[in-house]
Amino acid sequence: MRAAERNRAYLVLSERFATAAKLSAAREMLFWDSQTYMPAGGAWARGEQVAAIYSACADLIAAPDAGDLFAAAEEAADTLGDVERSNLAEMRRMWRHSVSAPKALLMERARFSSALHADWRAAKSSNQFALFAGGFARLMSIHREIAEATGEALGLSAYDALMDATDPGLTAAVIDPMFDDLEASLPALLGEVLERQAGWPKPRAFSGDFSIERQRALSQTLLSAVGHSPAQVRLDASPQAYTIGQSPSDVRIMMRFDADNFLYSVRATLHEAGHVLYELGLPRELAFTPVGAPRGATTHEGQALMLDMQAGRSREFLTWLAPVLAKTFGGEPESWTPANLLNHYRRVGQGFIRTTADEISYPLHVILRHRIERALLSGDLSVTDLPGAWSDLSQRLFGRRPPDDARGCLQDVHWANGMFGYFPSYALGVAFAAQLYEAATSENPQIQSNLAHGDFSSHRDWVHPRIHDRASKVPFAKLVEESTGASLSTAALKRHLRNRYLEEVMP
Amino acid sequence: MRAAERNRAYLVLSERFATAAKLSAAREMLFWDSQTYMPAGGAWARGEQVAAIYSACADLIAAPDAGDLFAAAEEAADTLGDVERSNLAEMRRMWRHSVSAPKALLMERARFSSALHADWRAAKSSNQFALFAGGFARLMSIHREIAEATGEALGLSAYDALMDATDPGLTAAVIDPMFDDLEASLPALLGEVLERQAGWPKPRAFSGDFSIERQRALSQTLLSAVGHSPAQVRLDASPQAYTIGQSPSDVRIMMRFDADNFLYSVRATLHEAGHVLYELGLPRELAFTPVGAPRGATTHEGQALMLDMQAGRSREFLTWLAPVLAKTFGGEPESWTPANLLNHYRRVGQGFIRTTADEISYPLHVILRHRIERALLSGDLSVTDLPGAWSDLSQRLFGRRPPDDARGCLQDVHWANGMFGYFPSYALGVAFAAQLYEAATSENPQIQSNLAHGDFSSHRDWVHPRIHDRASKVPFAKLVEESTGASLSTAALKRHLRNRYLEEVMP
Repeated sequence: MRAAERNRAYLVLSERFATAAKLSAAREMLFWDSQTYMPAGGAWARGEQVAAIYSACADLIAAPDAGDLFAAAEEAADTLGDVERSNLAEMRRMWRHSVSAPKALLMERARFSSALHADWRAAKSSNQFALFAGGFARLMSIHREIAEATGEALGLSAYDALMDATDPGLTAAVIDPMFDDLEASLPALLGEVLERQAGWPKPRAFSGDFSIERQRALSQTLLSAVGHSPAQVRLDASPQAYTIGQSPSDVRIMMRFDADNFLYSVRATLHEAGHVLYELGLPRELAFTPVGAPRGATTHEGQALMLDMQAGRSREFLTWLAPVLAKTFGGEPESWTPANLLNHYRRVGQGFIRTTADEISYPLHVILRHRIERALLSGDLSVTDLPGAWSDLSQRLFGRRPPDDARGCLQDVHWANGMFGYFPSYALGVAFAAQLYEAATSENPQIQSNLAHGDFSSHRDWVHPRIHDRASKVPFAKLVEESTGASLSTAALKRHLRNRYLEEVMP
Repeated sequence: MRAAERNRAYLVLSERFATAAKLSAAREMLFWDSQTYMPAGGAWARGEQVAAIYSACADLIAAPDAGDLFAAAEEAADTLGDVERSNLAEMRRMWRHSVSAPKALLMERARFSSALHADWRAAKSSNQFALFAGGFARLMSIHREIAEATGEALGLSAYDALMDATDPGLTAAVIDPMFDDLEASLPALLGEVLERQAGWPKPRAFSGDFSIERQRALSQTLLSAVGHSPAQVRLDASPQAYTIGQSPSDVRIMMRFDADNFLYSVRATLHEAGHVLYELGLPRELAFTPVGAPRGATTHEGQALMLDMQAGRSREFLTWLAPVLAKTFGGEPESWTPANLLNHYRRVGQGFIRTTADEISYPLHVILRHRIERALLSGDLSVTDLPGAWSDLSQRLFGRRPPDDARGCLQDVHWANGMFGYFPSYALGVAFAAQLYEAATSENPQIQSNLAHGDFSSHRDWVHPRIHDRASKVPFAKLVEESTGASLSTAALKRHLRNRYLEEVMP
């Protein structure tokens, strides 16, 4: 960042926010450790350490003189360059979130979510929603209090205020028309595709040795194909798939391996590898500044979903993947033909789980959660009535109900972890991924054809200057328009789904 | 800790120091990661993160109102219990260190040491002291400035002020007579023992598979013997042996494995296992308070050296160890007899390296570094003249000179890491270990005889209430007197060395 000696207020603020960002990186490291190597005995103290970092960050960001400093920095905004001005805007947004609700309440949310995780785990494994309901109702009332206070300060609705913390610029005005459109079109598309698939031969079951060791080796092969080196990227086993960036040259993937479903780690590794591309592509000289951070959850998920869905489930990539799978897992060669792999990959409308859903069902899963979140936050839906509402919405969107709460409203970790208002970003990310991938491949068709050789380099070269390197220098809407030539919509996604699931010639 | 509602100043201070302690635990976690799993690309940002935590801790401890709060808390000291009063005293000591030298200077030391590490590594591996000298001279001048400012504020000499940060209560008044006595007696003892050993049969060389995997399995066996469970203690490979405590139920050992010298990891594992006993034995209800922290470096090293030297090199323990080694490494059974193992373990006066030195040479290695540190700090010795001074002192203490600087003044990592004034604690720890172990085994001889079964439980049971559980509740001198019945001296150490190296009947 260019020096701005003539704007002392700006310098003081950016120094504080840089320290806070470095502390947050340490907090992420503590999370990574808790998911990978921490001995069981470490849990209680880890909660204390994480809370201490939250507290120290809050104090840095919401220092008593911050309001005056922002006023002074903005008054002398003509001393700042474009990037610095964007940085100032991002700092102000973070500060507003930090001071709009009382620190005690924000801390309570952090601590309470940490405790609720255990309740959720018990509820899910025993399929007893009641074990989760009490704590979640308490957490909801904290969310509501924070959301209302923040919304009032930011001039946003309560739900939009929650989203603004992780995905600024994505409000109901953007979400509602897109989600209404998808809700109106995807169930019908799902039906059409299922009808088409009814006449296909049954896919041959995969056979081989699906031990965690082999799956892990495969994940490393996939990371290499995407262009990731162990000098910058680690992958470790963990209960949930997730990625954290320590810096633009140190990113950690946590990967869940399921011995009964190797496809989970194949897709999840590509998904996380997309997150990694973004983290590694952020401008190093802006590390630990708000303007140097990823643009938001939709952009981040979009990067992941481009690899996971657009590229990673394409016919070209599967042609490359099939012999790699055969070599990794052994077993019957007939199960590893590209045709059989495609027959597995194209099947839709199965199961009840978001994280393993097909491309058409996935946005519907997200819309379901979003509708419920909105109703919970407004108070239109009580926590007690959540399982019933989930079941009814499943009936409406998928034409069937989950057999139990473990495969219904308890399936995702997010609410137990204190994430609320995050879900929309997944479906918006699906749409952004489709729109971006369409722009990329029509500008450079090799992006697609190179996948047949497991080569993602032209993909990265196209996305890097348009998304990764821009970090938070421009608002989300501008980022979308400048990279794709249009504002965010469902059009490209719908074209993509029809092409892949209705037009593609099956072997 | 009992509530002290009537002493608000105390509560405010203890809250801040607790947050700082949790941040420091996060910093240690970052260090652990950097030594074990961090991708190479993470180094530059890790330095930034660590510096940010230092800065945040310094701001918490040295807040502008801290002086007033200490005055108010001490004025109302009658509202506090004994433990709280000790906590207040410890907080005051930390605060004095934090405010006596300018924060910028303390930060510069932290950052500069971090950079110097690479110089040291290059200098050591190429055996070129000049590569280290310039940076170290600069660091020395920072040390000097900090030491003089802190010493003035604390009413201590410059060197004592540095020691007070990690080992309060251990000053020149304690060190000088002990070190003078050891310097006067150990070289002669070394000569006497060498003369005795001249007539022994040459020990048979060890044979077997000394791969890192087998050494690591042995380390786990040793940890189990000491009583450590994987639910509370991890061991990972690392360039240096070191231990960090995340909490009294999560402790991490970093272990160096040398394929050419398995005895290094045997001894170092026992050494670190002693540190672990202390960390796990600290009172959990005082976690993250200054009074709940270990008493100081001498006490900590004493815990490690009791296992490493007193117990871990005893005839009883070696009787248990011999068949364990045979089983772990395979090879010629004749090399794994207890008699042959003892013949290896009792040899003295070999090599030039502190970390692999025998029990008699070890304190002399430390005294050498201490003499040099004092001279460097006072300015009596310049950094340029350091290699010559080291060589001359080696001649005086050991009767021989190291063949090069890599095995001389560049052998230890401490000075490059910014540790200065820490070395004495190792030799004081040797003396404390001997004194404590003598008290323990004369009160309960089973502590010694149980080692023949690889059983350390009576050792732990004796030490825990007397040392571990007391944490920093009493000053060092009181801790020593109450646990051993005498003040710290060299007497027990000298008795121990004579017994083991001159009186013990060799098989």
